[in-house]
Amino acid sequence: MNYRLVAKQLGLLIAMLSGLMSLVGAWSFVQWKFFGAAAERHAWWALVAAALGGMLGGGLVWLRSRSAHAHLGRRESLLLVALSWLVGAVVAGVPYFIWAHLHFQGSDVAHPFHRVADCYFESMSGLTTTGATILSDIEALPRSLLLWRALTHWLGGLGIIVLFVAVLPSLGASGKRLFRVEAPGPSPGGVRPHIRDTAQTLLWIYLGLTAVAIVALRLTGKMDLFDSVCHTLSVLSTGGFSTRNASVAAFDSVAVDIIIIVLMLVAGVNFALFYQMTQGRFSAAWKDTELRAYLLLKFVVIALVFVNMQGQDITLTTGETVDASAGQALRQSAFTTVALHTGTGFCTADYDPWPFYSRVLLVGLMFIGGCAGSTAGGIKVIRLWIGLKVLMSELERAFRPNVVRPLRVGTSIVDPDMKLGAVVYVVVLFMLLVLGAVIVQLLEIGNERCDFQTAFSASMSTICNVGPGLHGVGARENYGWFGDASKMVMSLLMALGRLEIFAILVLFTPRFWRGN
Amino acid sequence: MNYRLVAKQLGLLIAMLSGLMSLVGAWSFVQWKFFGAAAERHAWWALVAAALGGMLGGGLVWLRSRSAHAHLGRRESLLLVALSWLVGAVVAGVPYFIWAHLHFQGSDVAHPFHRVADCYFESMSGLTTTGATILSDIEALPRSLLLWRALTHWLGGLGIIVLFVAVLPSLGASGKRLFRVEAPGPSPGGVRPHIRDTAQTLLWIYLGLTAVAIVALRLTGKMDLFDSVCHTLSVLSTGGFSTRNASVAAFDSVAVDIIIIVLMLVAGVNFALFYQMTQGRFSAAWKDTELRAYLLLKFVVIALVFVNMQGQDITLTTGETVDASAGQALRQSAFTTVALHTGTGFCTADYDPWPFYSRVLLVGLMFIGGCAGSTAGGIKVIRLWIGLKVLMSELERAFRPNVVRPLRVGTSIVDPDMKLGAVVYVVVLFMLLVLGAVIVQLLEIGNERCDFQTAFSASMSTICNVGPGLHGVGARENYGWFGDASKMVMSLLMALGRLEIFAILVLFTPRFWRGN
Repeated sequence: MNYRLVAKQLGLLIAMLSGLMSLVGAWSFVQWKFFGAAAERHAWWALVAAALGGMLGGGLVWLRSRSAHAHLGRRESLLLVALSWLVGAVVAGVPYFIWAHLHFQGSDVAHPFHRVADCYFESMSGLTTTGATILSDIEALPRSLLLWRALTHWLGGLGIIVLFVAVLPSLGASGKRLFRVEAPGPSPGGVRPHIRDTAQTLLWIYLGLTAVAIVALRLTGKMDLFDSVCHTLSVLSTGGFSTRNASVAAFDSVAVDIIIIVLMLVAGVNFALFYQMTQGRFSAAWKDTELRAYLLLKFVVIALVFVNMQGQDITLTTGETVDASAGQALRQSAFTTVALHTGTGFCTADYDPWPFYSRVLLVGLMFIGGCAGSTAGGIKVIRLWIGLKVLMSELERAFRPNVVRPLRVGTSIVDPDMKLGAVVYVVVLFMLLVLGAVIVQLLEIGNERCDFQTAFSASMSTICNVGPGLHGVGARENYGWFGDASKMVMSLLMALGRLEIFAILVLFTPRFWRGN
Repeated sequence: MNYRLVAKQLGLLIAMLSGLMSLVGAWSFVQWKFFGAAAERHAWWALVAAALGGMLGGGLVWLRSRSAHAHLGRRESLLLVALSWLVGAVVAGVPYFIWAHLHFQGSDVAHPFHRVADCYFESMSGLTTTGATILSDIEALPRSLLLWRALTHWLGGLGIIVLFVAVLPSLGASGKRLFRVEAPGPSPGGVRPHIRDTAQTLLWIYLGLTAVAIVALRLTGKMDLFDSVCHTLSVLSTGGFSTRNASVAAFDSVAVDIIIIVLMLVAGVNFALFYQMTQGRFSAAWKDTELRAYLLLKFVVIALVFVNMQGQDITLTTGETVDASAGQALRQSAFTTVALHTGTGFCTADYDPWPFYSRVLLVGLMFIGGCAGSTAGGIKVIRLWIGLKVLMSELERAFRPNVVRPLRVGTSIVDPDMKLGAVVYVVVLFMLLVLGAVIVQLLEIGNERCDFQTAFSASMSTICNVGPGLHGVGARENYGWFGDASKMVMSLLMALGRLEIFAILVLFTPRFWRGN
């Protein structure tokens, strides 16, 4: 294992993350100094101090190991990816910690950000685009910190898309070949320039969508520029951090809801398809099996939840109760279904009192998640599809053991390794989810708020990178009341889910660390 | 599909089952007529009438289709196996129904056996060796019906052992090759005589164990011959029906508990190993990987539960509360762990108030179950073992995609098909378990006794053929309070779990019914 090389890349990454943080710090300073934003008095300081520390630390690590070269091998890449999120969340959480200690100095207020575990949870939730928060009063934060929270979503999302669509398939990472952008073949400039090109195109797509989304949200007239920016950063990465306590319901606007539904839908699609579109291959993108299954699944569940909600009052996340007119029921079922399926986790309605049947469907969708190659969580639609096909063929093998039918997804044939990989992934995600729920429940013994549904849905919501869950972590609740140990466990679950488990799990196998 | 051939075999099977029932009826008649057992007055009639009906019906079906010959193909075998349990449970449940309607004629008593769903549930629970009961007062049944209940366990267990150890491996059924008794090879008399020999040896082993168990239990002096017989029939098939309301705790005897623990342990072992022993291959049997993993798993969990129970009072299923001395804690933790892991479901202690941690371990063991080739439920230890090995190799593939290591269990190599089969089985069992829990919860909306833990553990306990669950279906509760629809769903779950899912699930695939 070439540790120096990993350190060098990680140092660079941390310095870059801190550099972006310093820009938010500068904006905060301007707001405070020139626009009289008193709330920013401690925030700009916290952001700039944390950014300087990060740039210094990251820069030093980079300097000390800059002589490292050689090729970044598979194990080095995995370690780098895992550390990027695990260490990145430390760096991204420092400004919260500094701000709370400066701002409430000498007062009796016990702000969640006084605790290391809370800061780590919040920044991990940001970088993994989960959107679970430990804050009960989000609006009390200075705007610069709200912007930084949303920015961690956007950066984490960009990292994941580039990683899963451009980097891993080109490295031939196991099971990722299905999700590759194009057929492999000798490319004149070798692998590396190819990865860079793809990554660059993806960055432009992401930036383009960001610009369009900001303009669209601003044009509704219900969001100011700041809210438009923050919600855009959050929605395109299927994150879920809002600037309001009541999440998107605070804007009380059909137009905002519709735009955000569309943006969530878009963000849950495989970005490889957008890449294909930039190459002019629109019809290939539209014919994608996973995309169609994803849309179908969504519309079916929206319809079922809509029917199931008839005649029930709906409580919004603002606390207001509205009559369930057909329009209102459709709006709320569509928003909630899309938000939970894509793992965004924005809320407009409190779905906890909804009928059992609807909640089961929603939890099922949380587990399934959006498309591979997006920032949605869960097992991904493609693995569900492969899993069902494998099940059907196993059933047939029970009475026709010698029939061999190639398993197809669209026009590609899924090889046996990928079949096994997809099914194992579903099992492992589920096992970890249950293990997480059990550990949280054990850690919270004596805490009456933590019933089994709460622990189970908290574990599911974090490992599937959704955000809200049921009961104690429902749409109108938050994760602040858990103990520190539970928060650290859930932070690990978020990282596990985000990096599709194996990048983190391999760190626990002895063979990973042995040999060169 | 050769329906006539299936009908012929099924008719024969039903006639045989009814024949055995008539023997119990005869015993009942003798008890009533010559030993003054007044309780048998309606029971012997019910048993004999049902037996005559079954022999007549089965015989007629056999007669009408007796000209059918030709080879019993794979699809015919699957259909026959599925129908044997689905229809067999109807036949075995008829005496309960007749007895209740005769015995409570003209009275206001609403006995559970007045309802078809309850009778079907009870007899399915018997034939699938689950041991879940809908009776709250077991001791109120006539002894002949108690004997018949226990006998359904024993017959169902024998059927499963012969099926999974002798028949399926010899047919080369997918995924069953690992569990085969010996290496395949040309046998002089073809496949059929070989199956018959193996089945006969298994029958002798089963009968031998039965005789030893009856004698051992009788020698304790705490059980009379009747109880010894009934509990032996129940324990060797990992069933769980007792003759007492308080299950095994009613005998209040350390000796009985120890003998039953040993018998449960034996019954959870792959019967192919006993077969090997009859061929003189003791050391091969002892070196079996699954056997060792099974024993290790059990002892580890007993130790953990034992430690976890320290200092807590223990409530027995008799309702009595005892101080948790070390001896008492060891006795109860060992009995409960072995009973739930092997899917027997006998109870001495009410484990529902035990610490959360212990209950999680016990539920985990219920899901895992005993060894393949036994009548234990769950996914079976061997599949857990293969699943963990597959997981480890998938982890290694994340950083060494080109390493190929054959996956070994003992000295055999697991081929890719069997790996996929094992993992798919775990997923499907779990999916069905969750689906079952959701359906039961939906069916029981408005029924306050059915909380989520109850529905979930009832679904798990039935599909894993255990018997008791948690909360509303805990050690001191029963399944009688569920609605009819829930009972039918749980009956299906028992059949699904018993026949390792695929034999039942294939019936729902259109391809199964197409073609010849």
